[in-house]
Amino acid sequence: MPSYNAPVRDMLFVMYDVLNMDAYKDLEGFGEATPDVVSAILDEGAKITQEVLQPINLSGDEEGCHLANGVVTPPKGFKEAYKQYIEGGWGGLTGDPEYGGQGLPYVLGVAMNEMCCSANFGFSMYPGLTHGAIDAIEQHGSKEQQEMYLPKLISGEWAGTMNLTEAQAGTDLGLIRTKASPQPDGTYLVSGTKIFISAGEHDMSENIIHLVLARLPDAPTGTQGISLFIVPKFLVNPDGSLGARNKVVCSRLEEKMGIHSNATCVMNFEDAVGYLIGQPNKGLRAMFTMMNAARLGVAVQGYSMSEVAYQNAVAYSKDRLQMRALTGPKAPDKPADPIIVHPDIRRNLLTARAFNEGARAMAYWTALQVDIARRHPDATERQKAEDLLGLLTPVAKAYFTDMGFLTSSMCLQCFGGHGYIREWGVEQFVRDARIAMIYEGANGIQALDLVGRKLPANNGRALMEVFFPEIGGFCEQAAADPELAPFATAVLGALEHLVDAGQWLMENGMKNRDNAGAAATDYLYIMALTTLGYMWIRQVKAAKAKLAAGEGDPQFLNSKVILAKFFVERMLPDTAAHLAKIKGGADTLMALPAEAF
Amino acid sequence: MPSYNAPVRDMLFVMYDVLNMDAYKDLEGFGEATPDVVSAILDEGAKITQEVLQPINLSGDEEGCHLANGVVTPPKGFKEAYKQYIEGGWGGLTGDPEYGGQGLPYVLGVAMNEMCCSANFGFSMYPGLTHGAIDAIEQHGSKEQQEMYLPKLISGEWAGTMNLTEAQAGTDLGLIRTKASPQPDGTYLVSGTKIFISAGEHDMSENIIHLVLARLPDAPTGTQGISLFIVPKFLVNPDGSLGARNKVVCSRLEEKMGIHSNATCVMNFEDAVGYLIGQPNKGLRAMFTMMNAARLGVAVQGYSMSEVAYQNAVAYSKDRLQMRALTGPKAPDKPADPIIVHPDIRRNLLTARAFNEGARAMAYWTALQVDIARRHPDATERQKAEDLLGLLTPVAKAYFTDMGFLTSSMCLQCFGGHGYIREWGVEQFVRDARIAMIYEGANGIQALDLVGRKLPANNGRALMEVFFPEIGGFCEQAAADPELAPFATAVLGALEHLVDAGQWLMENGMKNRDNAGAAATDYLYIMALTTLGYMWIRQVKAAKAKLAAGEGDPQFLNSKVILAKFFVERMLPDTAAHLAKIKGGADTLMALPAEAF
Repeated sequence: MPSYNAPVRDMLFVMYDVLNMDAYKDLEGFGEATPDVVSAILDEGAKITQEVLQPINLSGDEEGCHLANGVVTPPKGFKEAYKQYIEGGWGGLTGDPEYGGQGLPYVLGVAMNEMCCSANFGFSMYPGLTHGAIDAIEQHGSKEQQEMYLPKLISGEWAGTMNLTEAQAGTDLGLIRTKASPQPDGTYLVSGTKIFISAGEHDMSENIIHLVLARLPDAPTGTQGISLFIVPKFLVNPDGSLGARNKVVCSRLEEKMGIHSNATCVMNFEDAVGYLIGQPNKGLRAMFTMMNAARLGVAVQGYSMSEVAYQNAVAYSKDRLQMRALTGPKAPDKPADPIIVHPDIRRNLLTARAFNEGARAMAYWTALQVDIARRHPDATERQKAEDLLGLLTPVAKAYFTDMGFLTSSMCLQCFGGHGYIREWGVEQFVRDARIAMIYEGANGIQALDLVGRKLPANNGRALMEVFFPEIGGFCEQAAADPELAPFATAVLGALEHLVDAGQWLMENGMKNRDNAGAAATDYLYIMALTTLGYMWIRQVKAAKAKLAAGEGDPQFLNSKVILAKFFVERMLPDTAAHLAKIKGGADTLMALPAEAF
Repeated sequence: MPSYNAPVRDMLFVMYDVLNMDAYKDLEGFGEATPDVVSAILDEGAKITQEVLQPINLSGDEEGCHLANGVVTPPKGFKEAYKQYIEGGWGGLTGDPEYGGQGLPYVLGVAMNEMCCSANFGFSMYPGLTHGAIDAIEQHGSKEQQEMYLPKLISGEWAGTMNLTEAQAGTDLGLIRTKASPQPDGTYLVSGTKIFISAGEHDMSENIIHLVLARLPDAPTGTQGISLFIVPKFLVNPDGSLGARNKVVCSRLEEKMGIHSNATCVMNFEDAVGYLIGQPNKGLRAMFTMMNAARLGVAVQGYSMSEVAYQNAVAYSKDRLQMRALTGPKAPDKPADPIIVHPDIRRNLLTARAFNEGARAMAYWTALQVDIARRHPDATERQKAEDLLGLLTPVAKAYFTDMGFLTSSMCLQCFGGHGYIREWGVEQFVRDARIAMIYEGANGIQALDLVGRKLPANNGRALMEVFFPEIGGFCEQAAADPELAPFATAVLGALEHLVDAGQWLMENGMKNRDNAGAAATDYLYIMALTTLGYMWIRQVKAAKAKLAAGEGDPQFLNSKVILAKFFVERMLPDTAAHLAKIKGGADTLMALPAEAF
């Protein structure tokens, strides 16, 4: 049976020593988030995820969800776990205090999401989707809608979903056909079929609030004619009590590669009562607000799987005795050495860990931008944070999930044949991790979003005025510190590759947009590696400062330095290869006619 | 439902145009293997794999195997398919004619294995394991054993297995505990438990011939004390008829990530009657003979999965309409363009295809070395082939299976959300592909075999006297041909990286063997990419020759040139990154004490 230990120490190190969250204590919600309080919250989070969610992860995968007469039942133990989760107030950690939330920094929500996902990916998606619905209603709903839905969504008594995809409309939401007909009372009747709806139906919460993209009659074609609707499973009476069952049903559960414990539903709307949220025909914009947060959530899923896979692979590698070390026996009293003595096993483990801890730092840094963008009094700071967020979100979503799948698979490899066997649990992490590369915008789309939208926006302001000065400035300072110089030099080299790639894009992506499309994923990888490198120097700097001050656990802090070295020696060299690939351009990619494939 | 079209045209192109198999017509078995005959055989192979094996692939995955009272039943349709397979004589394609085989070149066996695996990985393992047993008995059995077992194994009436792994002994076969006690009649009683035994028990063949590693009483400890035994499921009477049921039973089927249609058995031997094969205490050597062929078989599994995943991803990408091309609508009469217009979709597809077709050429080239090593009259040629085979086998096994998993996953990505859904079948390819990285020696072990054993053997003879002259010589000649020069220059660059990496290993791997262990996988990757590059130039050369002669399908031949360009521009640049990682050395990898993981 796999196990999970929430990496609370590393979370706190990132928040307070690396990102210096203390410095933001004047922001709303940050004042309460002292190290002591946050430490206590994370410890409680560790408890519920380790003791309640993790033990039903493997069994949930085995059992899957059940559909009978339109009712979906999650695997054994999920309903009880969900009850504990909402009773613990976990759904409302970062929610608006006006509606019962605790108003804590978004960073904390990300940390909790990470723990839930590492412990039980399938479970974590139920509250995860609710957060998406909360975001949409908070930002686009009327005051009345907010008052009606937010308290119960934030408490978790009600759950939420996002209904976007249709059979013919995945990436291309402009092709959506679901219709919404206005009624004399100001409501709409929504009809259509949505597919791949995560947590679309279940009996864990009293109600489910579906957010649904649909077209008004005579709406313009394409993405300009899509509106967003609230369609509750049970209609809500003016006093907040539940009314009639709405005409939205789950007609089918999908059989999938993984995340079996989460219900992936085909949802049929047949004249279901819906309420317009935001402006008519502006639904896609509203949906994107909520997808940005969702994308950061998915990014976290990527390294969460890698984290739990790493932990279990480490335990196995310390325990499993096979062969002698290349340099002679290390456990001569045993029939063989533990496999953690072998360099190639360590290469697998350290790749996962250098990614996990780099990604965690980058995820929290990104989440901090959400907090700054929402809560900072200074408009310039808010804009800088927005700019950074725009760049970092697609990078984190695509790179973290690509890598999470890959490094989970590397961790599986440490188990040898046992890795392929269900009961060891690590193959589930790999199967579960695979979905994150696809949903909330497939990773290729993230790369296009970065290169085609985020880079050129405002004449490249985000990159030129925020990203480069931040990372370049830090590295140049660090290069003057002998202890940090080797790291800084390496990251400045990667930054140079990023600049070079950007230059190439400017020169070639404009005159032939296929060149931009062909370069997008490799560009995203260079940016990801550069950002992770930056995060690693900041971790080294923080670790060295603590060591110098005689604070903290020296082994933990020294490990940071080793991992940063590993990252520089074994992962960062890929930026040069990505740059070379970019410069290959699009001509060869586009040369074959479709029929020659 | 996924589909499969056997790539017979490409197989023939590789065999006759690239590898010039005609030139070997004086070798035993090659005289009959004219292009016409081979073409007819491959067409028949395409038929049975496409029409019989492929249609039961998805259902076989869903249903899995059943165990009741020690009897294992494969999924519906498998028994009938197996009957057709052996009635078609497919089991004996390359078998010794003295025992009823057709004696055709080994290359043909590899091609048939590829088709079987692409069509139905789980099925292909049943005859695949039999081939391992045939090899062992052919090369190490007594004349009497060969006469008793080979005819029925070659015909497929009986199946074979390899019983190596025990709970405590996976990579480290020196830890095996299964015992064999000699009896007065010259037989042995074998007792012990073996795990992860593929095709260990089933009811598709009349008998199953288990090849079992066990220890004689008072055998030396470690790998020097292991012997190999034949343990038939049913004892065989002197007249060849079946006698008593032997005391070997399947006590359990493993639940796995994939290859559900193949029975992965825990096998209990309780005083089962066995027969020593080969010399006492020399069992491991005998087993390795048979594992070398098995490793090439597994290498083929790697690109086979990628091939079928590619084919289905292409079909989907031509059919699926989402978004407009970056350069403007390509199908203005449709609601959106087929996604094959998007560069990033093509990047995924072409990575898979450039790998598949490069790997196929390299696999057949490697298989040709098996034929030369076994059949060439000139001892020097035989030794050169053996040397090359020793290098290429671990490279193909590890690189093809790592890549096969990765590129199958890239093909899944083209399907978006549908890729994650069972009924589309592509997620099965990814799950099935994952095992090939593990069994027959985990890929990390292949890298150690290459760097620690194959490179230094005979003072580096294989590399210095065969591999480098072959590839370097060809590329230098090609560099003088303006049409081949750009490819040759690129591959010579990769070869330089390989030389540089070898130099580094010489200087650093001797004084600290962990440096060799830390470099092994990256070294293997450089060698794989270099060899694939060589294969791509040979394909371009052959394609250009045919185009110049006005032979063949120009679109097919021109595609070879495009794919070679793609390989050089988008895959070969990785050699520099691997070299940089090698030069990182082992110090950082080994710096953390086990408890700091």
